[in-house]
Amino acid sequence: MYFQEVIMRLNEFWADQGCLLWQPHNVQVGAGTYNPATVLRVLGPEPWNVAYVEPSVRPDDGRYGENPNRWGQYYQYQVILKPDPGNPLEIYLESLRALGIDAARHDVRFVEDNWESPALGAWGLGWEVWLDGQEITQYTYFQQAGGQNLEPVSVEITYGLERIVMVLQGVRGFTDIRWMEGVTYGDLLLRGEIEQCTYNFEVADVGNVRQMYDLCEAEARNALARGLAMPAHDYVLKCSHIFNVLDARGAIGVTERARYFARMRDLARDVASLYAEQRREAGHPLMTAFAPPKPALAALAQPIAEPAGQGPHDLLLEIGCEELPVADLDSAVTQLEAALSGALKEARLEYASLRVMGTPRRLVALASGVAGRQADRTSVVRGPAANIAFDAEGNPTRAAQGFARSRGVEVSQLQRRDIDGKEYVVAVLVEAGRPAAAVLSEALPGVVAALRFTQSMRWNASGVSFSRPIRWYVALLDEAVVPFEYAGVASGRVSRGIRPQGSPAVPIPDAASYERLMAEAGILLDVAAREASVLAQARPLAAEEGGELGHDAALLREVANLVEYPLAIRGSFDPNYLRLPGATLLAVMRKHQRYLPIVRDGELLPYFVAVANGATLDADAVRHGNEEVLRARYADAAYFYHADTQEPLAAFTRRLDTLAFQERLGSMLDKVRRLERLAPEFGRLLGLDEAALAVTRRAAALCKSDLATQLVVELTSLQGIMGRHYAALSGEPEAVAAAIEEHYLPRWVGDRLPETMPGVALGVADRLDTLVGLFAVDVRPSGAADPWGLRRAALGLIQLLLGKRISLSLPEALARAAVCLPVPVDEAVLADVQDYILRRYEGYLLEAGYRYDLVAAVLNAQGRDAYAAQRALEALTPWVARDDWRALLDTYARCVRITRDQPETYPVDPARFVEPATRALYEAYRVARARVDADPTVDGLFSALQEMVPAIRRFFDDVLVMDEDLTLRRNRLGLLQAIGALAHGIVDLSAMEGF
Amino acid sequence: MYFQEVIMRLNEFWADQGCLLWQPHNVQVGAGTYNPATVLRVLGPEPWNVAYVEPSVRPDDGRYGENPNRWGQYYQYQVILKPDPGNPLEIYLESLRALGIDAARHDVRFVEDNWESPALGAWGLGWEVWLDGQEITQYTYFQQAGGQNLEPVSVEITYGLERIVMVLQGVRGFTDIRWMEGVTYGDLLLRGEIEQCTYNFEVADVGNVRQMYDLCEAEARNALARGLAMPAHDYVLKCSHIFNVLDARGAIGVTERARYFARMRDLARDVASLYAEQRREAGHPLMTAFAPPKPALAALAQPIAEPAGQGPHDLLLEIGCEELPVADLDSAVTQLEAALSGALKEARLEYASLRVMGTPRRLVALASGVAGRQADRTSVVRGPAANIAFDAEGNPTRAAQGFARSRGVEVSQLQRRDIDGKEYVVAVLVEAGRPAAAVLSEALPGVVAALRFTQSMRWNASGVSFSRPIRWYVALLDEAVVPFEYAGVASGRVSRGIRPQGSPAVPIPDAASYERLMAEAGILLDVAAREASVLAQARPLAAEEGGELGHDAALLREVANLVEYPLAIRGSFDPNYLRLPGATLLAVMRKHQRYLPIVRDGELLPYFVAVANGATLDADAVRHGNEEVLRARYADAAYFYHADTQEPLAAFTRRLDTLAFQERLGSMLDKVRRLERLAPEFGRLLGLDEAALAVTRRAAALCKSDLATQLVVELTSLQGIMGRHYAALSGEPEAVAAAIEEHYLPRWVGDRLPETMPGVALGVADRLDTLVGLFAVDVRPSGAADPWGLRRAALGLIQLLLGKRISLSLPEALARAAVCLPVPVDEAVLADVQDYILRRYEGYLLEAGYRYDLVAAVLNAQGRDAYAAQRALEALTPWVARDDWRALLDTYARCVRITRDQPETYPVDPARFVEPATRALYEAYRVARARVDADPTVDGLFSALQEMVPAIRRFFDDVLVMDEDLTLRRNRLGLLQAIGALAHGIVDLSAMEGF
Repeated sequence: MYFQEVIMRLNEFWADQGCLLWQPHNVQVGAGTYNPATVLRVLGPEPWNVAYVEPSVRPDDGRYGENPNRWGQYYQYQVILKPDPGNPLEIYLESLRALGIDAARHDVRFVEDNWESPALGAWGLGWEVWLDGQEITQYTYFQQAGGQNLEPVSVEITYGLERIVMVLQGVRGFTDIRWMEGVTYGDLLLRGEIEQCTYNFEVADVGNVRQMYDLCEAEARNALARGLAMPAHDYVLKCSHIFNVLDARGAIGVTERARYFARMRDLARDVASLYAEQRREAGHPLMTAFAPPKPALAALAQPIAEPAGQGPHDLLLEIGCEELPVADLDSAVTQLEAALSGALKEARLEYASLRVMGTPRRLVALASGVAGRQADRTSVVRGPAANIAFDAEGNPTRAAQGFARSRGVEVSQLQRRDIDGKEYVVAVLVEAGRPAAAVLSEALPGVVAALRFTQSMRWNASGVSFSRPIRWYVALLDEAVVPFEYAGVASGRVSRGIRPQGSPAVPIPDAASYERLMAEAGILLDVAAREASVLAQARPLAAEEGGELGHDAALLREVANLVEYPLAIRGSFDPNYLRLPGATLLAVMRKHQRYLPIVRDGELLPYFVAVANGATLDADAVRHGNEEVLRARYADAAYFYHADTQEPLAAFTRRLDTLAFQERLGSMLDKVRRLERLAPEFGRLLGLDEAALAVTRRAAALCKSDLATQLVVELTSLQGIMGRHYAALSGEPEAVAAAIEEHYLPRWVGDRLPETMPGVALGVADRLDTLVGLFAVDVRPSGAADPWGLRRAALGLIQLLLGKRISLSLPEALARAAVCLPVPVDEAVLADVQDYILRRYEGYLLEAGYRYDLVAAVLNAQGRDAYAAQRALEALTPWVARDDWRALLDTYARCVRITRDQPETYPVDPARFVEPATRALYEAYRVARARVDADPTVDGLFSALQEMVPAIRRFFDDVLVMDEDLTLRRNRLGLLQAIGALAHGIVDLSAMEGF
Repeated sequence: MYFQEVIMRLNEFWADQGCLLWQPHNVQVGAGTYNPATVLRVLGPEPWNVAYVEPSVRPDDGRYGENPNRWGQYYQYQVILKPDPGNPLEIYLESLRALGIDAARHDVRFVEDNWESPALGAWGLGWEVWLDGQEITQYTYFQQAGGQNLEPVSVEITYGLERIVMVLQGVRGFTDIRWMEGVTYGDLLLRGEIEQCTYNFEVADVGNVRQMYDLCEAEARNALARGLAMPAHDYVLKCSHIFNVLDARGAIGVTERARYFARMRDLARDVASLYAEQRREAGHPLMTAFAPPKPALAALAQPIAEPAGQGPHDLLLEIGCEELPVADLDSAVTQLEAALSGALKEARLEYASLRVMGTPRRLVALASGVAGRQADRTSVVRGPAANIAFDAEGNPTRAAQGFARSRGVEVSQLQRRDIDGKEYVVAVLVEAGRPAAAVLSEALPGVVAALRFTQSMRWNASGVSFSRPIRWYVALLDEAVVPFEYAGVASGRVSRGIRPQGSPAVPIPDAASYERLMAEAGILLDVAAREASVLAQARPLAAEEGGELGHDAALLREVANLVEYPLAIRGSFDPNYLRLPGATLLAVMRKHQRYLPIVRDGELLPYFVAVANGATLDADAVRHGNEEVLRARYADAAYFYHADTQEPLAAFTRRLDTLAFQERLGSMLDKVRRLERLAPEFGRLLGLDEAALAVTRRAAALCKSDLATQLVVELTSLQGIMGRHYAALSGEPEAVAAAIEEHYLPRWVGDRLPETMPGVALGVADRLDTLVGLFAVDVRPSGAADPWGLRRAALGLIQLLLGKRISLSLPEALARAAVCLPVPVDEAVLADVQDYILRRYEGYLLEAGYRYDLVAAVLNAQGRDAYAAQRALEALTPWVARDDWRALLDTYARCVRITRDQPETYPVDPARFVEPATRALYEAYRVARARVDADPTVDGLFSALQEMVPAIRRFFDDVLVMDEDLTLRRNRLGLLQAIGALAHGIVDLSAMEGF
């Protein structure tokens, strides 16, 4: 089928489904989503079914036409179904069939892929659809757009037309696609693709393009101010495309990116609100334009039928879903076990055993030995006091009669009981257990509702959130359906088979037959069984090539959770790619494709094992597809790697001048120049020798250079890693290469720390430069958002100082960073930064489980030195656990509390201490002062204080501090102030509980 | 059929025709033409057949959705056929049939509409296709794009989808079009249309948008410099759209517009050359991708068959064309008569009579009594002189024998003849005439080739230019085909019927049957017959409504030339529109629709007569369509008129500040402010009284205000006319209103002149301001191009001065205009302007038939005052026609010539004139001087000179001017110089022939 015929076929298919056929937008967009027919029409309550082609421009994806299936411009086919018709995945699979793609032969998969567009203030959950490993469609349930919750939710289906046609035509790249008889895609588009790449990557004048952005933004605002949604939207799209060009050109720094995103998001939100308001004002004219989807399954009319037998019964609950994300599946299985067992207990339904399993499309709970009825429940209700309930003759009074009547028992059944030492009459009520099916019918909705996910989504009018849409329940008590309804779906006895077989209906006659029927349907319910099956199939495949599977338990679990029945297929790739760094090859294989690598003696072999879904697929077709995908992925990596290794790493440094760090703080190159100065300074503070300082200096000069390499521009997560690799390739010393990678460490809480001190010094310098710099130009975190990574920088700094046991004076360090900056930094800014770091540190310590008051006590006293503060905190912990802690603290506190409100600090004149108790206290103080001076630690302090306790107690027993003689009084107060000051700089005891 | 189905149907239709289905461009464009799939693919030799939808944005066409069929954005369906397949109109008509449009019922017409895009450097000839009066398609044979000649020519078909669907669905406006079941076009697009109108007309920030233009232009240049055609093209398109927004916003002045066009055209040219060069370098890879069109009719293989009879014969030549423009048809008929009669004469074929006729689709020549053979031709060839040819004995010499042999005659056949008084031998040769068919077969191509048109076009590989494509010839001599081939088309005997009947083949057995067969086919060959038929049908239609046809011979001829058989149909329009100015209604009816108006007592009635093509159409369908069209046209006029009359004309003046006149010369408002000062100054020079000066001042203030009204923005040709109308409506005095209109007069050579002097004063001021201003900022005409209208301004000025008999000193007038300008104007500039005006004046006079030397003589002397110069020229003409002119001029010239090289002018001392002849000459000079002073005109001068002739002659006879005595000599020279000076300021006799 020719390319143009595929479009015609899809148009026909979706028109038949009641879709409006729309046209591409006449502004460059990155995806069909940005067409007003999606991003605006999904807002508000009006139904909307639409299908259209969208030429999609993604400057950053351009490869000068050298990659077989990734170009900077390509054609999407976009479908919106609003609301969810109830079976959108099935309709989608039908559309593939209409194009001639046989899901029984090919591995069609729904792999979690959530979508977010910061520039649109939009997000949704869904999948990449894989066809033999190749991503051919993005499938998303839109949850938000323009910052608005979408009600109803829209289903968005985005076909990648070229990739589908490549499969249909059996060609190896976009270029060879036959658009029509005699004309290829390459004939039409290759030259333009190369030119657009050249323009976007090499030619666009950054200054001009930035100005275009500002002008388009101004005009968007201008249009918005006049209530013009469409013109404003066009300008927002122009901003977005211009931003993409700047980005491809390498002109957007990390911090600046966030600012651009915020600007675009603000615009997109304003456009969305304006549009939604317009539709409201217009009275939502399209409310009835589109045929409504079939209503959700008819609400419960069926009576609750108890199983024929008396029990115990088998209970089956199958929750049928659209494909669950891997992590959600594991979590759901655990939660379902807890929720169902809890619910059975709560319902007083005894059961013998409970097993919970799951596949991407079903969560299954099987309980055996479930009681036929609830256990009875006896309760005792207190009535009037016995002396009121019965008269002197022992006859029930009207009070007793009224009580009995209100509880539905005979007066004669009332009993006397002693309660809290007084006699009352009570009614003993016995609630008979109800039949299990009736009880379960009420309980099961709560079981499903109890399942929670990190990210969950709505999909239909019920408004219920779940990991992915729920499409059916099988709920059986032996042979009887347990009727319930939740999330707009009613329970029944019909399950669904595996996708390659078209998800045929599988009626379940009774709970006991379920497992057998599923097995017959080609489904392995238990993940452990699927893992075992993968290994059993894959190991021989590896062995046949003289290798073995690379061990990766997490990956194994992941692939096992991506299928209902694994089919392991070995594929190969061009051994030439083995010349690329192994880490890159593995990362691509694992992250993008979830292939199991095949290794021999630790070295990668040019093979992989892909795991497909369903035993009956056409293995050759699936293998071929997966090989083609990996080829394209590796071509991409090779393309970048080749480009990057044409020059030494140092050559990339100068390009950092086009990479903005932050408007007022200059380019990334400016930052590097600061780090070249700052990092050796910190190195010296950290006691590095001259050789290490030289390493630090060189590493600082190169530490950001890989940001200008294409592999890192494409895969930001490789920053540092590729820097190290390229540095080594360029002949830099190993220590320099290591420091380049390590200065990014730790990247998250719990990540590994640098191993070399130059890496540490550079990491500290980089983070302090970022923190002080951004605060100085008033870029500060607000609320939970941290677009500039300030939180990460602060936490990274803390972890470095703690992990590497570095005592560093924060005020001094901040001041040093401030001096290097191109903007003035006043004291208030430095104080704010310090406070911000301390607040992050505080949070870090609390997360680690320390008592909040202890944290406050050490940070108040020693927060300027994070490592010292942590040591103090560790020392403090055993002290507060001691039995005598309370007394110690209290004694010390008396000294402090009485002096707290004094306006000044009084000198102590030992000559005037007349009372023995005072003199004794003064002596004790002198001893303690000397000890603390000698050992100004928590242990030193408390040891000293402990010895003073008797003297303090005696003093307060014997002496009235607040003598009328002012001289006396002040001398005593002065002594107590001195005792209080013993803790200064060590711990702020006043912050502690019980002070 | 729903809107979306129409697109699907067209896609299917054109895909079946071998077209590639393409997508809309993702940059805002004004038409599908701008899509690279047209504007670039039409370049170069590669075939290209493509079809696609294009959302087309034309800010200026926006009407806030109030017009039924004109919106600022709509959907084109674009088809390119390259090369011409030979029958593209027929394929197009088939596509309409595929949509369900029955050309047998509806009036489908091809009305001349040539296309030019200054912004693309592109043009082509073709038609609007009318469906019952409604323009539904633009049909163009592309001749040039990006400044390049197109070889092959492309056929461009641009459907207006909405208008077609309106007919198919029988709805009255875009808004009501059913896009699909339940959803209208208005549901989808109306709000956006209104918003885009608001943005474009009211909101766009002119400063921002201008900056965008400059940036996009810079980036286009940037991309071009790197050889990147596609990115450059995108930016050119952005420039074009941005320009359109500025234009809609009313921010582009006339002069500035030209500059923008030049900038865009330069870019478009550079992109086109670059693209064409790329294709050449790539070796034109698509040369064989598309199936070639059928080859042109097989070249002549058939033998020439003479008619059976001996003659005389009837000769028929029918040239079958695609629809000829009205003016070309008339001109072609005249030319064909001359060409064919000339050719017959040249061919020595006698004939009795020749009739030439034509319809839009055929040019027909019918000759009767054509001789069966050429007349014989006798020629006499001179040989040697008789005395050489024959010896003394009278026997032929070898010379005679050789001559006879060389001429193929016997010596005995040589004759003697007297030639120029000498006897020669001659050979008398008789060339026998050849049969007529053979001769005609050679002659007819030349007859067709002789036809010339104002604008002609190429269409096929023959490279021949004609008014529109030639598709067939019928060439018959009685029953015999006269075989020939021209322009890739071979002659035959098959004509074609009328379009409504599907242009069926009409075989013509012999020339004599042709007229009868055409009549039977429903075709009136003679325009006079068609005119008579129109009147015969239309007059009763008018009378039925109590009116009569408005007399308009030109229009009648036009409509008669637009059809092969007229069908007059009366339609009506809403009488409410009669409230609009009658001139507007008539202009719309005539210019846009070619309807005959119906009037009663000079007042328009709400009816019209449309003339359709073909007697057999469905009159009701045609009437309905035409009424709908006129409704939309009038809605448009009413829309603007309403908007314009909400405020007095004076209120529009301030908006002129957003209308640039020229960058450095400021806005139109600035120009108006200058005219307010300058026009009364000229008024005073022209001798206006105070009242007239007040009128002049007020008119100056308002003279450009209508440029800011919407009707004039839309229809620039109404400038001045609407200004006058709106001024009168606003209560301005009639004299002011008149001057506003008149200051534009004359608009072309031969146009009427102002009737009022304020109009003249203002017109002079406006033109001088333009001329001096533009020269001062160095905007000067170059070559033939006159984008700034400088030529028109200069010619207008000249015509005003001459026509109103105004003596005005150009240097003074230019200086006055210069003073008002916001830029410095130096003497050199003023001299340049004056010279420019004089050159135009010179051309004007030469065009008027004056002798070039006389023109030079008066302009050299009096060019500073155009009117005076013209009077001098008129006076000069009879003088040079006199018998004694030569003598007079010669005598005068002697005086001048002898003094010509003198370095100085010598004083004359009468006391030193000693010779009588000198003294007499001096006396004669004194008389002459006094006469010329008293009457410094040509007549005065020459009368005086004439009287001096004897004195001059005597002087030269008697006196040696160049006496050795220097004093004497100089005194004599001084006298002659004085005589020479008599002509100064009157006429430069040295410029005249014979001087």
